[in-house]
Amino acid sequence: MAEKVKVVQMGLGPIGNRVTEILAERSDIEIIGAIDSDPAKEGRDIGLLAGLAPQGIKVTSDVNQVLGAKDVDAVILTTTSSLAKTYDQLVKLLPYGVNVVSSCEELSYPWESNAELARKIDELAKEHNASVLGTGINPGFMMDFLPIVMTGLSRNVRKVVVERIQDASSRRLPFREKIGAGLTLRKFNERVKEGTLRHVGLSESVQMMAGSLGWKLDSTEDIISPIMAERQSQSQIETGTETETQAQAAESDKVLGVQQIGRGLVGGDAIITLVFRAAIGEPNARDRIVIDGTPAIDLVIKGGVNGDVGTCAILVNAIPAVVEARAGLRTMVNIVPPRCFQ
Amino acid sequence: MAEKVKVVQMGLGPIGNRVTEILAERSDIEIIGAIDSDPAKEGRDIGLLAGLAPQGIKVTSDVNQVLGAKDVDAVILTTTSSLAKTYDQLVKLLPYGVNVVSSCEELSYPWESNAELARKIDELAKEHNASVLGTGINPGFMMDFLPIVMTGLSRNVRKVVVERIQDASSRRLPFREKIGAGLTLRKFNERVKEGTLRHVGLSESVQMMAGSLGWKLDSTEDIISPIMAERQSQSQIETGTETETQAQAAESDKVLGVQQIGRGLVGGDAIITLVFRAAIGEPNARDRIVIDGTPAIDLVIKGGVNGDVGTCAILVNAIPAVVEARAGLRTMVNIVPPRCFQ
Repeated sequence: MAEKVKVVQMGLGPIGNRVTEILAERSDIEIIGAIDSDPAKEGRDIGLLAGLAPQGIKVTSDVNQVLGAKDVDAVILTTTSSLAKTYDQLVKLLPYGVNVVSSCEELSYPWESNAELARKIDELAKEHNASVLGTGINPGFMMDFLPIVMTGLSRNVRKVVVERIQDASSRRLPFREKIGAGLTLRKFNERVKEGTLRHVGLSESVQMMAGSLGWKLDSTEDIISPIMAERQSQSQIETGTETETQAQAAESDKVLGVQQIGRGLVGGDAIITLVFRAAIGEPNARDRIVIDGTPAIDLVIKGGVNGDVGTCAILVNAIPAVVEARAGLRTMVNIVPPRCFQ
Repeated sequence: MAEKVKVVQMGLGPIGNRVTEILAERSDIEIIGAIDSDPAKEGRDIGLLAGLAPQGIKVTSDVNQVLGAKDVDAVILTTTSSLAKTYDQLVKLLPYGVNVVSSCEELSYPWESNAELARKIDELAKEHNASVLGTGINPGFMMDFLPIVMTGLSRNVRKVVVERIQDASSRRLPFREKIGAGLTLRKFNERVKEGTLRHVGLSESVQMMAGSLGWKLDSTEDIISPIMAERQSQSQIETGTETETQAQAAESDKVLGVQQIGRGLVGGDAIITLVFRAAIGEPNARDRIVIDGTPAIDLVIKGGVNGDVGTCAILVNAIPAVVEARAGLRTMVNIVPPRCFQ
C-alpha cells in the first residue's frame, strides 16, 4: 500500500463535518489537521464535531500552526460559496505549497465569471507548485462534468439539456431553507432580490460546458422563479414550462421550492439549458442529460443522486487526482476523473 | 485558434473509414497521412475509401514514408483486437515519438490480462516520450470508464452491475455476424469454441473497474451463451436470467444473438457484473449502470448508445487528451476525460 495522503480539513460547518465522516472511513487518507475561524470550535476534536469518536485532531484558527508544522498533501476547503472570499483564503494557504480541493461553487469554473481572480489563483498556485480545484455534485458533476464526459461518445453535439429535479421532502432543514420552502411568496421574492436565495454555480456550469465543447456563447441567462402549490401540475413539470406564479399567487401564499434555469445562447437559440428544480413534494425526482447530437443520448438517473452525500464524496474522491494534477487552477475536466478508491 | 493536431490514420477497415469521416469534419484536427498493409489500398485516397471527397492523402503500407517525413502528433490505430499484434505495430510506431490512440480492445486495460506486454508497451512509450491509449465504447467507456466516473459521487461502493443490451436489427451486417445472429446453434457453439465469436474486452472492463476502485478480485468469469428465439420472454430478460437454451434447442435452430456475462468475484460473491446482450429483436435496448453503495445510483440510457458511432467518436475525441498525457501506457481513467470539442 502506498503512503497515506495527508489531509487538512478547513471549514467545519455542515459540509465540513460530513467530509470528516468520509475522511475517517478512508484507508488511503489520513486527517492531520483541522482549521476553522470560529472561536467556539477552537480546541475541539474534529471527530466529536462530526458526531464520531475523537480523532485526536484539535481544531485551530491558526493556519500556520497546522501548515507550517506538518507536511500536508491537500486541504479540503469548505468555507464559502464566494470566489472572492475563497481567494483571500487561498492567499494564506497556497504559499505552503498545499493542494486545495474546495466546495466553493464559484471556484468550479471562474474563467468567464471572474477571469481576473481565476488568473490570479492560477498564477499563485503555479508559483507554489500546487493545484486548486472547486468541485461538488452541482456545480462540479451533474450539470457540467457528466454531460461533458458523455460527449466523449459524440461525433457532434447540437444542444445539451440537463435537468436536476429534487424532492426536498426528505432533505435536511438547511436544504429546505436554501430553496425557500415554506417562505411566503413576498419573502421569497425579497430573498431572491437580495441574492440570498439562489443555487450558486449554474452560470459556472453553463460556462464550463461551453468552454469544454468549444462553443462561443453570445449570452447566458440565470432565471429564478418560485414553485407554488397550485402550479405543481404534472403537465407543466413534464413540459418544463417555467412557473409564472407571481401573477396568479397571493403574496402571502407559501412557496414549495425553487426553479432555476440556466441557459447558454447563440443567436437567440439556447444550445445549453440547465433546469434545476427543488421543492417539497416535487414529483419525478431525477437527474437527466439529453444530448441532441450524433448519437442522440438520453441519460436518466431515477430519483436523482443525493446532493449532500455526492458533494462530500466528490471532495474526498478528488484528492488523489488534484495531488497528481499539474500545478495551477484546475477544473473537473482537466484532471483525471475522480473515483471512489477504497 | 491553436494549431491543428496532426493525425495519421492507420488501418482502413470499416472502423478506420468511419474514423476518417469524423476526422474530416473536425476543425481542430488535420489528417496528414494514411497507412494500411493491404496492397489493394496502396495509393488510394483516404477520403475516397471512406466515401468522402478526396482528401489529398494517399494510403501507403510504408510506416517510415509517413512518420519519418512528417511531424505527427498522433496515430489512430484501428487494425486489430489482439494485444500481441498491436504490440508488434507499436514497436514500429513508437520510435517515431508519436502518440497512439487505438481501438484494440485488449489494449484498453492489459495490466491484468497480459502484464508483461503492458509493461513492455509502457516502457517503450516512455522511452520515446509518447502516450498510448486503447479505447472505444466498449471496452473503454460504457462498461468500465462511465461506471468508474459515477463512483466519483460515492462515499462507498459495494457492488456494480452494468448492462449493455442491444437490438441488432438495425445494425450493419458485420455487427450481426459478429454476434452470431442467423447461425445455427451448432455453428454458434463451434465458433465460440474456436474463439472467433466473442465480445473482446469484457475481462478488461472488469479489471479496469477493480483496479480503479481498489478492489482485489479472487477470480473473474467471462461466460458466453446463445440467445434463441423461444427464449426471448420478457420475464427472463428483465430478471437477467442466463439463457440455458442449449439443453432445449435443437442444434439446427437459429441463433438470434449472444449474451456474455463478465464477473469479478470476491469470496464467491460477484461484486462486479457486466451483462452484454446483443440480438435481433432484443427488447428494452439500453445501457444501464447500477451502483450498490452510498448513495445508490441507477443510471439508464434508454435505447443505448450506438456502438459504431460511439467507438469512432471516442477514438477521435481522445486525441487531445492523449497528446497532453504523461508518457507511457495510459488507460481511460488516467487521462483527462475526452469530450467532443467542435
